[in-house]
Amino acid sequence: MDSMWKKILVGVAVGAAVLTVGILLGHYGIEKGGTEHAPTWLKALAQDVDEEVLDIFLKELDPKRMEDNLRELSLKPHMATSAGDQRLVQLMLQRWRDAETGLDEAWTQTYSVFLSFPNKTNPNSVAVVSAQGSVQFKSHVQEKVYTEDQKDPDIVTPFAAFAPAGNPKGKLVYANQGTLKDYEFLNSSGVDLHGAIAITRYGGSSRADKALNGAVFGVAGVLVYTDPFDINDGKTSDTNETYPHSWYLPPSGVERGSYKNSFGDLLTPYYPSKEHTYRRPESEVEWMAPVPTQPIGFEDAQKLICELQGAVAPDAWQGALQCEYRLGPGFRATGSFNGSDVQVNVYNRRGIHDSDNVMGLIRGSVEPDRYVIYGNHRDSWVHGALDPSSGTAVMLEISRVMGSLVKQGRWRPRRSVLFGSWGAEEFGLIGSTEFTEEHYSQLRDRAVAYINVDISVFASATLRAMGSPSAQSVVFTAAKQVPAPGTLSLSVYDNWKLFTNRTSPTHGVVPSMGYLSGVGSDYASFMHYLGITSMDIAYTYDKTKTRARIYPAYHTAYDTFDYVKKYIDPGFMSHQAVARTAGGVLLRLADSLILPLNASDYAESLESYLDTALKNFTDNLNAHQISLAGLQGAVLRFRAAATQLEKEIREIDPDKESPLKVRRINDQLMLLERAFLDPLAFPDKYYLWHVLWAPVSSSVRSFPGLAEAVEKAQRTQREEDWRWAHRQLTSVTTAIERAVNVLENALHP
Amino acid sequence: MDSMWKKILVGVAVGAAVLTVGILLGHYGIEKGGTEHAPTWLKALAQDVDEEVLDIFLKELDPKRMEDNLRELSLKPHMATSAGDQRLVQLMLQRWRDAETGLDEAWTQTYSVFLSFPNKTNPNSVAVVSAQGSVQFKSHVQEKVYTEDQKDPDIVTPFAAFAPAGNPKGKLVYANQGTLKDYEFLNSSGVDLHGAIAITRYGGSSRADKALNGAVFGVAGVLVYTDPFDINDGKTSDTNETYPHSWYLPPSGVERGSYKNSFGDLLTPYYPSKEHTYRRPESEVEWMAPVPTQPIGFEDAQKLICELQGAVAPDAWQGALQCEYRLGPGFRATGSFNGSDVQVNVYNRRGIHDSDNVMGLIRGSVEPDRYVIYGNHRDSWVHGALDPSSGTAVMLEISRVMGSLVKQGRWRPRRSVLFGSWGAEEFGLIGSTEFTEEHYSQLRDRAVAYINVDISVFASATLRAMGSPSAQSVVFTAAKQVPAPGTLSLSVYDNWKLFTNRTSPTHGVVPSMGYLSGVGSDYASFMHYLGITSMDIAYTYDKTKTRARIYPAYHTAYDTFDYVKKYIDPGFMSHQAVARTAGGVLLRLADSLILPLNASDYAESLESYLDTALKNFTDNLNAHQISLAGLQGAVLRFRAAATQLEKEIREIDPDKESPLKVRRINDQLMLLERAFLDPLAFPDKYYLWHVLWAPVSSSVRSFPGLAEAVEKAQRTQREEDWRWAHRQLTSVTTAIERAVNVLENALHP
Repeated sequence: MDSMWKKILVGVAVGAAVLTVGILLGHYGIEKGGTEHAPTWLKALAQDVDEEVLDIFLKELDPKRMEDNLRELSLKPHMATSAGDQRLVQLMLQRWRDAETGLDEAWTQTYSVFLSFPNKTNPNSVAVVSAQGSVQFKSHVQEKVYTEDQKDPDIVTPFAAFAPAGNPKGKLVYANQGTLKDYEFLNSSGVDLHGAIAITRYGGSSRADKALNGAVFGVAGVLVYTDPFDINDGKTSDTNETYPHSWYLPPSGVERGSYKNSFGDLLTPYYPSKEHTYRRPESEVEWMAPVPTQPIGFEDAQKLICELQGAVAPDAWQGALQCEYRLGPGFRATGSFNGSDVQVNVYNRRGIHDSDNVMGLIRGSVEPDRYVIYGNHRDSWVHGALDPSSGTAVMLEISRVMGSLVKQGRWRPRRSVLFGSWGAEEFGLIGSTEFTEEHYSQLRDRAVAYINVDISVFASATLRAMGSPSAQSVVFTAAKQVPAPGTLSLSVYDNWKLFTNRTSPTHGVVPSMGYLSGVGSDYASFMHYLGITSMDIAYTYDKTKTRARIYPAYHTAYDTFDYVKKYIDPGFMSHQAVARTAGGVLLRLADSLILPLNASDYAESLESYLDTALKNFTDNLNAHQISLAGLQGAVLRFRAAATQLEKEIREIDPDKESPLKVRRINDQLMLLERAFLDPLAFPDKYYLWHVLWAPVSSSVRSFPGLAEAVEKAQRTQREEDWRWAHRQLTSVTTAIERAVNVLENALHP
Repeated sequence: MDSMWKKILVGVAVGAAVLTVGILLGHYGIEKGGTEHAPTWLKALAQDVDEEVLDIFLKELDPKRMEDNLRELSLKPHMATSAGDQRLVQLMLQRWRDAETGLDEAWTQTYSVFLSFPNKTNPNSVAVVSAQGSVQFKSHVQEKVYTEDQKDPDIVTPFAAFAPAGNPKGKLVYANQGTLKDYEFLNSSGVDLHGAIAITRYGGSSRADKALNGAVFGVAGVLVYTDPFDINDGKTSDTNETYPHSWYLPPSGVERGSYKNSFGDLLTPYYPSKEHTYRRPESEVEWMAPVPTQPIGFEDAQKLICELQGAVAPDAWQGALQCEYRLGPGFRATGSFNGSDVQVNVYNRRGIHDSDNVMGLIRGSVEPDRYVIYGNHRDSWVHGALDPSSGTAVMLEISRVMGSLVKQGRWRPRRSVLFGSWGAEEFGLIGSTEFTEEHYSQLRDRAVAYINVDISVFASATLRAMGSPSAQSVVFTAAKQVPAPGTLSLSVYDNWKLFTNRTSPTHGVVPSMGYLSGVGSDYASFMHYLGITSMDIAYTYDKTKTRARIYPAYHTAYDTFDYVKKYIDPGFMSHQAVARTAGGVLLRLADSLILPLNASDYAESLESYLDTALKNFTDNLNAHQISLAGLQGAVLRFRAAATQLEKEIREIDPDKESPLKVRRINDQLMLLERAFLDPLAFPDKYYLWHVLWAPVSSSVRSFPGLAEAVEKAQRTQREEDWRWAHRQLTSVTTAIERAVNVLENALHP
């Protein structure tokens, strides 16, 4: 070979190799950040949940810290707007502003809201007064002291919030649970209710209804007590049976509560209660207890009920007080109260008070304008160790671990995470409702989901979750990842399935996640008014082991740290399980590339509602020329659209697809729930805009507006009531069709 | 130099050069498509309006083609649901499905809606009937034929749609414009209205109000005519003055119209009129003309009015008929109608009919889930050359040019462009309203803006535009780019400014763009019910040159191609100017990287409303302990948030920023308008959810709910009316605060 050729060849070979190296260097070796072809944000856009970060997060959720949180949170009574509440406002701010474990931002939002408190210098009571005017008996003004914490001077004396002041006096009658049926029974049994004082027991109806229903029959005052049958599995003695010997309610324990049937600030429905806000006159407020009403302990109730004369109450009305319950009116002639009346002395005062929400934010890295919201109220009735501080203890631990990861630069959520410590929940979900009113547009446009953890641990047996069907899958995923406390190797999910389950046509046997068809905690305005996919998560008891309506110290002075530590969750492992489950849901919602919301699970719920409607209503509706075919068609189309969207999600390649396609799909998943809002569906109710989960009187588990309307029309057989049923059918059908539109990309029908 | 060193150095130099070439090749030369670093969509994400494409688009909009469109569209009468309407449904579909100039998709949407038609075999009429029962005069059953097109057997005989059938007979009275004040004046003047037939002229009140107001005073039937003073600048003779000699209305011309005060299908408010939809009974429908009502020509009106007896009508009531107008009741004794009554014979029939919308779509390339909507109704009363076919002619030309660019692969909009050819607008915006009801959620989430071009050319003097303040800047931008017909070198914008202008605190002298505080065309449900930024664009006349309320052939049989070609826009250059202006707005909204919607212009409007409110209402409100401070604060915060958002927009570098940031800003701009919706602001009206533009009775140009409420309270001085004013103030303040939230990135207040 000629040397020149050789040189040339070698030169070309070397050159080619060098060129190749250059090409490779140029293509892969130079940092792409800042060049026009590969901006720095590119990789972040396609980032999914980092399971390693999630593991770290779950591991760091510390039961000991939650115990410490709870001790501090429940140190003092912290009823809404009290000094104790203000102390906790500062505590939340301090935690969320901590330099090492805090969030990006924390702030308060203050609303001036309509509340009701007893008179400190003139506490409410109930008296038996003889015909001559002498007081023969007076109820306890406060609960019996067993432990140091109950000596706190800030413990509010028992009262029925929003019940009017007054001193009505009359013959006592026993009205069972104070339902309309109960009063009707008394009335039809010849018991004169006019001017009477009705004693009722908790359960079976809302607090306010016990008074509202009684007032229909002319009842002048109402007493409410907790029957040991309903709460204590019959136990009544504080010498060895009730707290401090067990979790059961002592005889003097009194459940406080809000005696009104609507949530949010009563004077400013739909508008945030700010300085400029119009306040309607109290006379226009609906659904508050209309007559003086007072809750008492079962010790006092027994003194009254066991002296009643009159017919023996029906079996179902009997409770666990140690006597045969009679209806009244008035006391038996052979007893010491013969001829006496009962007087209810209520000195409550209504007024406007400033209540704070405390908010904390971690800004999202990729989609700061998408919010995953986690909330819990802060106000209690007394020490509120379980209600709500068990939830706040969990929230503070979740926010601490997340905050630490952020402060250390180890993690930042894709979407913004917003924490809310709501004020004045006990008076009717006021803080959260005012927040949703003020931020309606922003939340309507940007909120991905709302996770509510109020009382985090009712008891330590099993998870209990309620929520929108589209949230079921992420709750299941999170619950599968958490070991269940008190089991050898079960996950929270598997343990939950042991306690309560159902057979899903798609998934087989799964835990029963309930619907949010109530307004029992701060999820209400998020779900019903804003159509934000919501969840409510807690640990609870084994219903086969107790008849207790709820944990027995609920809303009493015995809901203390000591009570929780001794009888509810001594090792705080259930707190940890809730923190891990709810925290896992939160992190997945915040970080998943494609939102873990499931439209097919929504389809399954709609199909179940539809089946029930077809079975229960078809004949009656057809007889009035109303067809369910439109509804059937809508549900079918919903299923098809959900299937199609999920196919699209499966086929997506985040590295290749435009981030706007991912965003579009996420918007569809986020906004699906909004499509079910119809402000006109329930024109007589406030905030109940969600046509699928509105709480109604019907017990048929189907489309609520339709079910309630058909039941009414069946009862009355009035043409206008059938028309209303048809209108309800149109409302829900239209909403489902709109939801189909949200799931679909096309405008094409 | 040693030759080895030389070789090495040369080798290194060559190698370095080759390496450099390689690096450059690798970095820039290799197509990035499909690699992990630079996906194909990257460039498209940052693409802004292509001004070259826009130029081509504007140039191709062809006046000759619009003329051809109009000839074809107005060939036959095409009243809603008629054969002529169906012919145009097919025409639209055929155009939008054309292989070379069509859109991506076209389809129809059918709604079964409540309409009203005259009886073909028994046309309506008005008669003068003597006391003996002989008919002394009968009104024309149809308009006089001057040209071939008016011989069409499908021309609907004049009628007042939705007025009930009936044959009331009574003394004639002249009630001017039929306002409540007019009837009150007659009543207080001692004119007995009970059982009377009122003749009223068009203008001053809605059509239905002329009958609704009369019915309040017991009027039994209503006639409506067009006074030549109001429409013809006094001209009355068809021998040389009116059409076919000019654009003026011939003596027998009759304005048809819908006689009801609410839009959308009357039987299904808020729900799309589909098969399954609940229809309320007719008896529940509000605001339809309650007594038989018939429109007549001024030739017939003159015969009646000039025979009236009674007091001379006030000066302002006099018109251009050749006599002195008197009030009645009844005819003068010296005339041939002495002692006679007038009988209104109405045989209208109401019923449910299928009406189609035709929809056409161009899918967006980057953001297919964002819709820019352009619409125009299709149905007319008769040939409807101007109303609405002049608009349809423009829409078809815009869609043709866009469709061609798409089919040729030269262009595809960033966002989806949706065209709507609405049905049954003349009966109350029914097609567009049903569309917004059906697609409420999708449009709420995804619609960027709605452009309405109904009658595109009223006359050829100047542009006239109304719209949301945030649309002002894009309308201005588009109008600056179009030469004004009939001028030497003025733009449409400059020409417009000559005719109507105002001084903006920010921009100086600008054309006056009106607000959409009416419900006169299909923008109503988009703007008022859905809160979609909307515009209404047309060419119109020089108001200094004519008193005509509207073009004189409006809603008559003379609104024909011949009329347009001869007297409105002979060269179709005004059609072209509208097509270019509205088309430019459409293309900019579809293609701009950052939506050309302007929050600061919105701030200016709010500030102007606020100034007026402060001037007009402060004293009266303060006297009732109502402060405007909250509203003032909200408007201040709105201005600050708008300024801040615009700063952010100015600073954005689309090549460097994440496309999700661009999307976030666009969502803020898109959703701003939605924040002003409050379904509770006007509880007695349908669809009027927008708290800023709702049409109300007040003439004060301020926040409409507040203005109306304060005026009422000032009148009545009732405490409850002042409370309502306060509630209205809260509604608008809350809406503005929510709008601030939409403009802000933070949840932080």
